Amino acid sequence: MQRTKIILEEKDMPQQWYNILPDMPTPMLPPLHPGTKQPIGPEDLAPLFPMELIKQEVSQDRWIDIPDEVQDILKLWRPAPLYRARRLEKLLDTPAKIYFKNEGVSPAGSHKPNTAIAQAYYNKEAGIKKITTETGAGQWGSALSLACNFFGIDCKVYMVKVSYQQKPYRRSMIMTWGAKVVPSPSDETEAGRAILSVNPDSPGSLGIAISEAVEVAAKNEDTKYSLGSVLNHVMLHQTVIGQEAKKQMEIAGDYPDIVIGCCGGGSNFAGLAFPFLKDKFEGKKMRVIAVEPSSCPTLTRGPFAYDFGDTAQTTPLIAMYTLGHTFIPPGIHAGGLRYHGMAPTVSHLLKHKQIEAQAYDQLEVFDAAQMFARAEGFIPAPETSHAIKATIVEALKAKQEGTAKTILFNFSGHGHFDMGAYDAYMANKLENYPLPDEDIQSAIDLIKDYPKAE
Amino acid sequence: MQRTKIILEEKDMPQQWYNILPDMPTPMLPPLHPGTKQPIGPEDLAPLFPMELIKQEVSQDRWIDIPDEVQDILKLWRPAPLYRARRLEKLLDTPAKIYFKNEGVSPAGSHKPNTAIAQAYYNKEAGIKKITTETGAGQWGSALSLACNFFGIDCKVYMVKVSYQQKPYRRSMIMTWGAKVVPSPSDETEAGRAILSVNPDSPGSLGIAISEAVEVAAKNEDTKYSLGSVLNHVMLHQTVIGQEAKKQMEIAGDYPDIVIGCCGGGSNFAGLAFPFLKDKFEGKKMRVIAVEPSSCPTLTRGPFAYDFGDTAQTTPLIAMYTLGHTFIPPGIHAGGLRYHGMAPTVSHLLKHKQIEAQAYDQLEVFDAAQMFARAEGFIPAPETSHAIKATIVEALKAKQEGTAKTILFNFSGHGHFDMGAYDAYMANKLENYPLPDEDIQSAIDLIKDYPKAE
Repeated sequence: MQRTKIILEEKDMPQQWYNILPDMPTPMLPPLHPGTKQPIGPEDLAPLFPMELIKQEVSQDRWIDIPDEVQDILKLWRPAPLYRARRLEKLLDTPAKIYFKNEGVSPAGSHKPNTAIAQAYYNKEAGIKKITTETGAGQWGSALSLACNFFGIDCKVYMVKVSYQQKPYRRSMIMTWGAKVVPSPSDETEAGRAILSVNPDSPGSLGIAISEAVEVAAKNEDTKYSLGSVLNHVMLHQTVIGQEAKKQMEIAGDYPDIVIGCCGGGSNFAGLAFPFLKDKFEGKKMRVIAVEPSSCPTLTRGPFAYDFGDTAQTTPLIAMYTLGHTFIPPGIHAGGLRYHGMAPTVSHLLKHKQIEAQAYDQLEVFDAAQMFARAEGFIPAPETSHAIKATIVEALKAKQEGTAKTILFNFSGHGHFDMGAYDAYMANKLENYPLPDEDIQSAIDLIKDYPKAE
Repeated sequence: MQRTKIILEEKDMPQQWYNILPDMPTPMLPPLHPGTKQPIGPEDLAPLFPMELIKQEVSQDRWIDIPDEVQDILKLWRPAPLYRARRLEKLLDTPAKIYFKNEGVSPAGSHKPNTAIAQAYYNKEAGIKKITTETGAGQWGSALSLACNFFGIDCKVYMVKVSYQQKPYRRSMIMTWGAKVVPSPSDETEAGRAILSVNPDSPGSLGIAISEAVEVAAKNEDTKYSLGSVLNHVMLHQTVIGQEAKKQMEIAGDYPDIVIGCCGGGSNFAGLAFPFLKDKFEGKKMRVIAVEPSSCPTLTRGPFAYDFGDTAQTTPLIAMYTLGHTFIPPGIHAGGLRYHGMAPTVSHLLKHKQIEAQAYDQLEVFDAAQMFARAEGFIPAPETSHAIKATIVEALKAKQEGTAKTILFNFSGHGHFDMGAYDAYMANKLENYPLPDEDIQSAIDLIKDYPKAE
């Protein structure tokens, strides 16, 4: 019988993270201090992160050892299985071979714990007692709650209010592992109060929630901040995904022509894609596609520019694709993709044409989600379904061209906490939110006086 | 580093189901026709089930081949991993070794698809176009919807009303895979209307929902009925769990002194326990424990007697532990354990002291659930948490006795669709429902004129 999935043993888990920074074909623009406009140094990040993570953030080492204590927890669900989606192929009647890496097998149901465990570990090692963070759909918040629980660290999660309301059971999950959850904007922080004073009904955004979590960490000695995406060290920790997938594709006797991941802050995309991009930098031919929502089209329509990572302008200025740090995306169900910016690494790769970007509407994404759920059984998260949509598009293109492309996408998480969104979809209550051109212009206007990203 | 889990390859999957019937140390009492009071024959079951399943129901073959088509779908998640719960052991400070089989990895999140896939396959082979069934918490309904989707069979699920209301997202899951869901009691059937006319606010029960599903199947030529537990062929299909676990325990270099499963209709318990009981019948020493809720204490307090499997008395009379077919259990969150009866095989084994039974209250079960979630990461279903509670009790007993017992339990499913129950638990809103003695007496009175189970 044909094999459905490729499983690795625990002993085959990657022992090191892959750091893409030294392999970037062109140098990246540094983060800038918002006051001095000069490149920031490690000391600027020290109030927020433990030193080991700051070192990883700027490291030029290609390989960084994964501590035993981190691996020991990752083993609860890793290595994650690699699937051949034969039933989806058959349904599409495509000559393309479709593979996916199932990151939904973690206790939190997504790829997010890969970095949460590592970050909690380094904070614990640094003697930190408390971590604050933000979360959109709740996937990051639940992952960090899980991680902090393992290391005995208190955890407080500022959850984007619209998701807090839409996804009550993600919140329950966060609480089950012991973290506190606060809907954001909240009245607990200056950043939150400032937003609420202008708009008491603000649905919140990742940018606002980041501001709140950063503020609390910056003001408290024993508290650090943790970010679930965007930063270099987060991308780094996710590279276990792509490293495993490479081994598994080798066992399958295949290699992807196209690598696909959905993209909010960039971490699940980077986790799968970066280890493959290493091969691309060395001459291997492949397409690498980042997929985002049309309603929050950072990569496909935003300018590449220096901008803040958060609404309250507390982060350094980062060179990235951005819709402007005041942008509040429509309340689509893919809460994890509702971020105005993008990882600097991912942005840099797109700017320099090492990767491509595509955007899809909410409705066509849910069509793809349901098709996948019926073909392969597993119910995908709305975020993940963006990657599935792109995969289907590419598989149908392969059919049209009559080429047997090999496609690999990241199944970044399951949709068990998104069934309300599926309900709305089945009841024809979902909408598309195409972004008006004037919103793009607003972003450009907002950041026009910042240093140029050149 | 220590191994956390034992993974098998797809090629190591069991090729046959283990049928416990020929190995029973004492003969079982036959199901009786409610009219004639004589043992039923295959023809009595023919309106409800395809002939291949009826053959399996009465087969005396020890091993029955698993069709390739069934295995090919089981491979989407099987073999399921076997875990060593080292963090729970450490938390309990017990010398006991705790292992669990993770059946939560299936697309539906529980062990139920193991038999749903097989049943849908045999119905498809028999040319059946439509299947009806009942579901409690929704785990069985979602599993059958998934299975019918793979084989192109229409599926209708009568869902116990209290669960339909408590667990809306299980319902959404069932619908995502294409089945129709009806809250039971409904006005679609005579059985449902009869209940509603007496009690319009009836919360429903598995017994009522079975009556509805059976009625629809019996009245329609192209429609069959499917049961997610209780019957011999369902126990049979679940034995892939125990067979895999035996291989995995061997790889771990261990063998369980105690095997534990939660018990509603009996199928996840049987699936894990029966292959081990085969060894017990051959002289191996072990304890095998079935765990149920104190609020529905079929095995621990019900009489062993002939009774109906459903409320409307449409099934054969079955020799089993029972709380009476009119019993409506309190609305505990472990919806899958709210059944008045028990699998005849499991009942027979308890009656003849091959297994033990324990009952626990809802609150202590949720204490165990939260302890497990924090120790091992994975959030268990309320049903599963009964097995976890018993495991903790036995592990603490081992500590007290200073004996290094090896305990294996079945993690029958995750709790992603039960977070409302966790919410209630964390808000101190959960209650215990100890069963009054008069309810046991009512059961005895109800069935006193039925044939004696002797």
